[in-house]
Amino acid sequence: MHGLMMDYPLTLTSILERARRVFGEREIVSRLEDGSLHRSDYAAVHARVRRLMSVLAKLGVAPTDRVGTLAWNSHRHLELYFGIPCSGAVLHTINVRLQPAQLTYIVRHAGTQVLFVDRCLVDVLKPVLGELEQVRHVVVMDDEGRGAAAGLDGALDYETLLAEASEETDFPELDERQAAGLCYTSGTTGEPKGVLYSHRSYYLHSLGSMGMDSMRVSQQDAVMPVVPMFHANAWGFPFTATFAGAKQVMPGRHLTGAALAELIETERVSLTAGVPTVWNLVLAHLRKHPRDIRSLHTMIVGGSAAPLALLRAWKEEQGVTITHAWGMTETSPVGCCSRLRTPTLAEPEDAQLLARKKQGIPVPGVEVKIEGDGGEELPADGEAVGELCVRGPWVAREYFGSDDRSAFGDDGWFHTGDVASIDPLGYVEITDRKKDLIKSRGEWISSVDMENAAMGFAGVAEAAVTAKPDELRDEVPVLWIVPEDGATVDVDALIAYLAETFAKWQLPRRENVLTIDAIPKTSVGKFDKKVLRARDTEPGSSRHQQQ
Amino acid sequence: MHGLMMDYPLTLTSILERARRVFGEREIVSRLEDGSLHRSDYAAVHARVRRLMSVLAKLGVAPTDRVGTLAWNSHRHLELYFGIPCSGAVLHTINVRLQPAQLTYIVRHAGTQVLFVDRCLVDVLKPVLGELEQVRHVVVMDDEGRGAAAGLDGALDYETLLAEASEETDFPELDERQAAGLCYTSGTTGEPKGVLYSHRSYYLHSLGSMGMDSMRVSQQDAVMPVVPMFHANAWGFPFTATFAGAKQVMPGRHLTGAALAELIETERVSLTAGVPTVWNLVLAHLRKHPRDIRSLHTMIVGGSAAPLALLRAWKEEQGVTITHAWGMTETSPVGCCSRLRTPTLAEPEDAQLLARKKQGIPVPGVEVKIEGDGGEELPADGEAVGELCVRGPWVAREYFGSDDRSAFGDDGWFHTGDVASIDPLGYVEITDRKKDLIKSRGEWISSVDMENAAMGFAGVAEAAVTAKPDELRDEVPVLWIVPEDGATVDVDALIAYLAETFAKWQLPRRENVLTIDAIPKTSVGKFDKKVLRARDTEPGSSRHQQQ
Repeated sequence: MHGLMMDYPLTLTSILERARRVFGEREIVSRLEDGSLHRSDYAAVHARVRRLMSVLAKLGVAPTDRVGTLAWNSHRHLELYFGIPCSGAVLHTINVRLQPAQLTYIVRHAGTQVLFVDRCLVDVLKPVLGELEQVRHVVVMDDEGRGAAAGLDGALDYETLLAEASEETDFPELDERQAAGLCYTSGTTGEPKGVLYSHRSYYLHSLGSMGMDSMRVSQQDAVMPVVPMFHANAWGFPFTATFAGAKQVMPGRHLTGAALAELIETERVSLTAGVPTVWNLVLAHLRKHPRDIRSLHTMIVGGSAAPLALLRAWKEEQGVTITHAWGMTETSPVGCCSRLRTPTLAEPEDAQLLARKKQGIPVPGVEVKIEGDGGEELPADGEAVGELCVRGPWVAREYFGSDDRSAFGDDGWFHTGDVASIDPLGYVEITDRKKDLIKSRGEWISSVDMENAAMGFAGVAEAAVTAKPDELRDEVPVLWIVPEDGATVDVDALIAYLAETFAKWQLPRRENVLTIDAIPKTSVGKFDKKVLRARDTEPGSSRHQQQ
Repeated sequence: MHGLMMDYPLTLTSILERARRVFGEREIVSRLEDGSLHRSDYAAVHARVRRLMSVLAKLGVAPTDRVGTLAWNSHRHLELYFGIPCSGAVLHTINVRLQPAQLTYIVRHAGTQVLFVDRCLVDVLKPVLGELEQVRHVVVMDDEGRGAAAGLDGALDYETLLAEASEETDFPELDERQAAGLCYTSGTTGEPKGVLYSHRSYYLHSLGSMGMDSMRVSQQDAVMPVVPMFHANAWGFPFTATFAGAKQVMPGRHLTGAALAELIETERVSLTAGVPTVWNLVLAHLRKHPRDIRSLHTMIVGGSAAPLALLRAWKEEQGVTITHAWGMTETSPVGCCSRLRTPTLAEPEDAQLLARKKQGIPVPGVEVKIEGDGGEELPADGEAVGELCVRGPWVAREYFGSDDRSAFGDDGWFHTGDVASIDPLGYVEITDRKKDLIKSRGEWISSVDMENAAMGFAGVAEAAVTAKPDELRDEVPVLWIVPEDGATVDVDALIAYLAETFAKWQLPRRENVLTIDAIPKTSVGKFDKKVLRARDTEPGSSRHQQQ
C-alpha cells in the first residue's frame, strides 16, 4: 500500500517557479567583464530562461543532450543552470582552468554538442575547437550582442538569440530521476570522471542546504558564491539560493581580494563560500583597506582544509566565524558541515576553534562511516582512522560512461578516497587523501598534518608533503616548502620544530626538505602532488634548489 | 537518460539511523503521568524501536497493517512513531479528545487491528472497544509493567512485551512511497477524513522543516512539541527533531501553563510549538510566576490564527517573537511560515508585527495560489481574496478509503477550503474558512475579521461569528461573545466599536449579538461553528441568554 500523497516530481522547474511566484523582485547582481555591475531579478531570469528554452529547441537540442558551459559566475550562467535542465537537456559545466588536453577529453567524453562560452573565455576554447568534431554550435556570451564578434567562425551571440526568441515556451513535464547536470572531477589521478546529477538529487541537495545544520540559506540572505559555477555546481548555491529566494551576487571573473571585499560591502552580502586561498586574499585586502562587512554572517570554507590560523584571524580581526564544510563532486557536493554540537558550545573559545577546524557533522540526508583496509567499519572514537564512505540521495552511484566501479562498493556506499577519523560527537576530520598517506615501517604518516605543522613555522608560506619510496622504511616523507617573500627558512630549525609534533621516525630527512617557488596547483586550486612527485624523480629537479 | 545518483530511498529508517549514529546520547525527556520526568536518549529509542518491531511481528502485524496509538506526547509515543512505520506497517494516530461515535468511526474506517493506549487514556477506549470487532490486540503503556492492570480484558503491557522481545531485529528495506502514517482530519463538516502519508512525504517534510524559512530545527535545539502527537503528526516535530538530532521534551498530559513553563525553564527548551490558547495559558502563568525562559528562541503558533494582542504581549513582556505557521492535516502539515521578508525587516516594529500576524510565506517545497469562484487564479496583490490551493511533495492527493474528490481538482492542486489573500511580498493571510464566510447582498463578510475585532473590545474574552440565512440580504452575521470573568458587555457600545472597522451593512443586528458561557471547541481546539449554528436554530437556544 502506497501513501496517498501527491506524485509531485522533485525538479529544478519547481524551484525556479517558486522564485518567480514569490520572489520575482529579488535581485541577481553580476559583475561584468569590465567591472561594472549588471542587475537582474528572478522575474527576468524566469522570462529569459523561457526564451533560452526556445533557443535550445531552435538549435536542435533534444532531451538528454549535453549542453556545455565555459563561464564565470553571472546571471547568464544562472539562466543556463536552469534553462538547460528545465528543457530536459543536461547542463555540462566545464572547468575553464583545464589544460587543453583535459578540456578536449572532457567535451568529447561527455558528447557535448552545444557550448555556451563567456567572450573573455573564448581563448580557452579556440585552440581545441578543431578537435571537438561533435560540437555543432558555439554561443558566445557578452553584452550588447558583441558575442558573435569574438573571432570564432560561425559563433552565435547569446543576447541576439534571446532577443529573437519567443518567451511563450512551456516547461516540459520531467521525471525527477531524469539527468539534469554533468560535472567532471578534477582528476588528480587518472582521467577526469563525470558525475551525472538528476533533478531529484539537485532538488534534495538544495532543500537540505537551506537547513540549520547545513548551509542555512534563507530568503533574507544575499548569497555570493565565490566558488565557481564550473566547479561542483558552485557547491549548489545557485540552485539553493534560487529555491530560497535569496539575492545572488555573482563576482564574474573578478576574484581579487579587493573586488570581493567591495561586493561584500556594497551589496550587503550575508553568506559567501569559497576555498581557503580566496579568504586569505580577502583578509589580506581588508587588513590594508578596512571595509564595513557587518552584513556577513556566514562564510563557508571548503575545497581543502582551512588552517587554524585562517579561522583564528577571521574571527579575531573581522569578527567572522568561518564554517568549514566538506564535500566532493560525487556528493553534489555538500556532505559535512561544522555546525558545533552543544557540548562543544559549552567549551572555551579555543576548544571550539579546534572543533571548527574539523570538517564537521554529516548534514541531514548524508550518512558517513569510516572503513578499515579490510572493509570493516571502524569506531567513531576520534582515534581510528580509515577511508571515509558516504551514501545518500545526492551521492553518485557510478561515473558517467565509465566501467571503473572501484570507488563504488557492492555495499551501496561511495568510497571517497579521503582518510578520516570520526569522534564520539560525530565530527568528521579528514586527515589525508588515501593516496597521499605515507606508509613508513608499517605505520601511517599524514601528509596533511605535516603540511599544516610546517605552515605554522615562521617564514613558511606554503608546504606540501609527498611520499618517496625507501628501501628500509617502505616510504619516507618529502617536505616541499615555499618561503614567504624575502624569508629564508632554516631547515634544521624547521625539523626541530616538527619534532615537537611528530615522532622521530616520522620526520623528513634533511635532504628531503626542498625549497621551491610555488606549490603546483590543480585546476580547482588543490596541491597537485602528482606534479611534485614527478618533479622529485626528474633529473635536474627542484631538489637542486635546496639550500 | 537518468542521473547516475544513488537510488537512496527516503524513509524514516534512515532518519532514525542518523540519530543513533551521530546523536546517540542526545536526550528525550518525557513527563510521566505522575508528573515526574523520564530520561531516554536516541541510542535507547533506537534499541527499543528494534524490540518494538519484534513485538509487532509477534502480534502478527504485517506490512501495510494499521496500528493505532491513543497517547500523549512521550518517549513511548516516539518509539511508536518510528517502530510502526519502520516495520512496514502504518502508524495511525488517534485523537484522544474524540467523541465515542467519532472514535469508533475512525478506528473502523481505518481497519486498525492493534491499538497502543496510554494507561491514563484507557477510559477513552473502554466504552467503544466492544464495537471495534477488528481490533485484535490492545497494548497498554505505563511504567513498571502496570499496563496490563488497566482493567481491559486481555490487554497486554508495553514494557513487559519490550522486555521480553529481541533487539536483534533488522530493519526491512522499504519503498519510499510505501504508506507510513494515517491521520484523520477533525471533520468540522461531515465525517472525518483520513490522510495516508508515505515515508517519502514524511522524510521530505522533515528535511524541509529544518530549513531557515521553515521551522529551523537544528541539533542544537531542545524541541518541545506541545501540539499533540495525535494531531497532524505533531506538526512533524517528532520526525524533524529526530532527523536533526535535537533534544526532545515531551510534556505528556500535563498541558497547564505552569507545567509547560517549568519544562521550558528546567529543560532549557529552545523551540516549542502549539495553538494560541496554549501560549495564552503559559503567558498568564508567567505573569504571576516569572521564570527564566531565555533559552527559548522560537515559538511556533499554528492551528488557528494568533491574535495580534498575543503576539504583542509575548514580545513586549517576555521578549519572545511568535512565529506564525499555517498548515493542515492534508499538508503534513507545514505549508506557510511567517519568516519576514527583507523589505518588512526594514519597517518599524509595528508594521513587522502586522506582517507576523499573517500566516506567512509558503515554505520551500510547497506551492500556493488563490482561486476565484470560477477556478481562475487570482492576483497576489493583497486585495483579491480566494480559496487557497496548495501542491507539493507532502500534500495529499486523495483521502484514504474515500470517493470524495471534491477538494482535489483535476488540476493537481489541493483545494484547502481556507479563504486567503496573498500580498505582493508573498505573505499569505487566511481570512476565513470558505464555509464560514458570510455572503450579504452579494458581498463577503469575513467571520474571522469580525471575531478578531470583537475580541479587541474591553470585557470580551472570546468571540465567534456565524452566518444566518436572511431573506433580504442572503445571510447576516451572528456574533457570539463570552465575557471576561465578572464583566458585562454593553452590546450597543460593542456594535459602535465594530462600526469603526466594518461597513454599516456588515454589522450584526443587536438581536444577533448573543452572550454565552463558552465557545464550543472541536477536538483540536478550534471554534466549533457547526455546534453554534445548530444552537442558533434550536428552540430554547442560547439566544435566550441574551441580555
